[in-house]
Amino acid sequence: MDSAISQLSCEYHDLNGSHIDVLEQPPTALEFSRLVHISRPVLIRGAQISSVRFWDDEYLAATMGEAQISVAVTPNGRADAVTRSPDGRLYFVEPCVEKMNMSELLSKLSCETEDSDICYLQSQNGNVYSTRFFQGISDPSEFEPLRPDIPTEISWCSEGLGKSPDAVNLWIGSHKSVTSIHSDPYENIYTVVRGSKHFTLLSPTDGRCLRERMYPHGTWTRAGTGLTLTPSRNIPPIRWSSVVDPDVPGNLPPEAHPIQVTVEAGETLYLPPGWLHHVRQSDNTIALNWWYDMEMRGMSWIVLSFLRGIGDVPSGNDEAASENAQAEEFL
Amino acid sequence: MDSAISQLSCEYHDLNGSHIDVLEQPPTALEFSRLVHISRPVLIRGAQISSVRFWDDEYLAATMGEAQISVAVTPNGRADAVTRSPDGRLYFVEPCVEKMNMSELLSKLSCETEDSDICYLQSQNGNVYSTRFFQGISDPSEFEPLRPDIPTEISWCSEGLGKSPDAVNLWIGSHKSVTSIHSDPYENIYTVVRGSKHFTLLSPTDGRCLRERMYPHGTWTRAGTGLTLTPSRNIPPIRWSSVVDPDVPGNLPPEAHPIQVTVEAGETLYLPPGWLHHVRQSDNTIALNWWYDMEMRGMSWIVLSFLRGIGDVPSGNDEAASENAQAEEFL
Repeated sequence: MDSAISQLSCEYHDLNGSHIDVLEQPPTALEFSRLVHISRPVLIRGAQISSVRFWDDEYLAATMGEAQISVAVTPNGRADAVTRSPDGRLYFVEPCVEKMNMSELLSKLSCETEDSDICYLQSQNGNVYSTRFFQGISDPSEFEPLRPDIPTEISWCSEGLGKSPDAVNLWIGSHKSVTSIHSDPYENIYTVVRGSKHFTLLSPTDGRCLRERMYPHGTWTRAGTGLTLTPSRNIPPIRWSSVVDPDVPGNLPPEAHPIQVTVEAGETLYLPPGWLHHVRQSDNTIALNWWYDMEMRGMSWIVLSFLRGIGDVPSGNDEAASENAQAEEFL
Repeated sequence: MDSAISQLSCEYHDLNGSHIDVLEQPPTALEFSRLVHISRPVLIRGAQISSVRFWDDEYLAATMGEAQISVAVTPNGRADAVTRSPDGRLYFVEPCVEKMNMSELLSKLSCETEDSDICYLQSQNGNVYSTRFFQGISDPSEFEPLRPDIPTEISWCSEGLGKSPDAVNLWIGSHKSVTSIHSDPYENIYTVVRGSKHFTLLSPTDGRCLRERMYPHGTWTRAGTGLTLTPSRNIPPIRWSSVVDPDVPGNLPPEAHPIQVTVEAGETLYLPPGWLHHVRQSDNTIALNWWYDMEMRGMSWIVLSFLRGIGDVPSGNDEAASENAQAEEFL
């Protein structure tokens, strides 16, 4: 099985190379449909959303007012990531979610010090528009005041796919927040509004390069002024990559074919389903993304599932795995 | 490797079932592009080509006049198929190609007896329009007189794929001609003008059900009045399915998922690249097909290649393989 996937991966890279296409203007719906069939990332310029183009801290704070928003808080900027606990074990740790208003978030982001907790607005649950919105059901959003600025859908994508988005999210963070490498089973249109995002991308055929392990689940919880890694009681172990930072030379195996792409303000990344991505960002970065359900009919889903592999995934806390864990440095 | 493909095949069929969609009118270019991504056959009604709708023998013979056309002639109606030679060995045998005019072809097709040779117009080389035509290069066709009736392309397909066809072919045959099961690496738009075609389809994930073997190459050659199977001297062995008739119960292994579809006059079958097809037809059947190059970028080609499998394909003339050969009955 492993050698079958390894062969498929070699042939994929021989045929497709390690570059992505850049469009200087947004595709038509038909052109986008063809891109979906090719299923490789594309950087799209000239698709700025005029209504969010001039968002600044003052406007955001004034528009949002006292509305409470859910912010991911961690001591290390790594929400949803593998981290070593003081008990010596590695956990997949979800952030502490704390409520604050926009002004407080922006202030915390601009005043981060070496010791402060790291905030990242990354709620990912359709925080601007969720599935309910597109189903015509009541869909309250913490970002209601900003909704008039945020398009519900991307026309060439909705028309190309023949469907509405599944979720639309707002992301606001600093260079201290990093998203660990993972993939989503969605068509993803990711627009940077301010700042820049740096993606390290791996094709679905490189999934085996992630050295996935099973990690017990934990959550950062507020205990007094500090955050404590609290093991979860009733959440089963999480399958996650043991490669903490794929940008560090040697962290990925030599057979991996990472693609680096920086998405600047006003640019949009089309990220197809199953593509692995690790994301860094500059300070004061704001982004929006539109997730659309992928086409389940045909081969796409089956092949992604096949490439994820089957069989037992070893524990991330086995002695050998643990020794090599790159999570060490983030204690 | 085999078990990996077997698992992929099971999951494909669990998800997609064993049916095909039917459209009551041709798709738009965008709808077709989405169908290409799903890559499953679709039967399309309401896409009649008015200029060929009333082709009858008289019109065809009169329009083509004395123009000589290349016709595949075999003793058994099986051009490009595995057949046992009097020397006891199985061969992949190409037809004898003989020139005649349209009137002679139609006359032979209507007067076939138990003993007569079987004619099938199936030259498959872009006999109406070849790649050269679409490149603007001189492209003489044996069917030049019929070209005014035959569209160079199918608009929703060309626009959907963003390219012109690679080849356009005319097919004329009787119920005695059968096309052995195989696949082509092309997007195929197959329109029946008169009569009907019966397709047995298998998804690319069922390729392993074909029991492919290596067969020496042969050709039917005219020797006096009869046709003789002549082994080829300088053509390497051909990899071909040892399943001669997948419609006979038991000929396909139980894990195969054949789909039966009959395409009537005026109907069009969209047959995606890599789909295995075995084709029968009624008497007096005329068809046209447009082949378009498949998208080579992305995963599609890689996955088809993967599903074809690697490693040594056994000889079709090994003792065990030969004993079971269904080709026996067609001696």
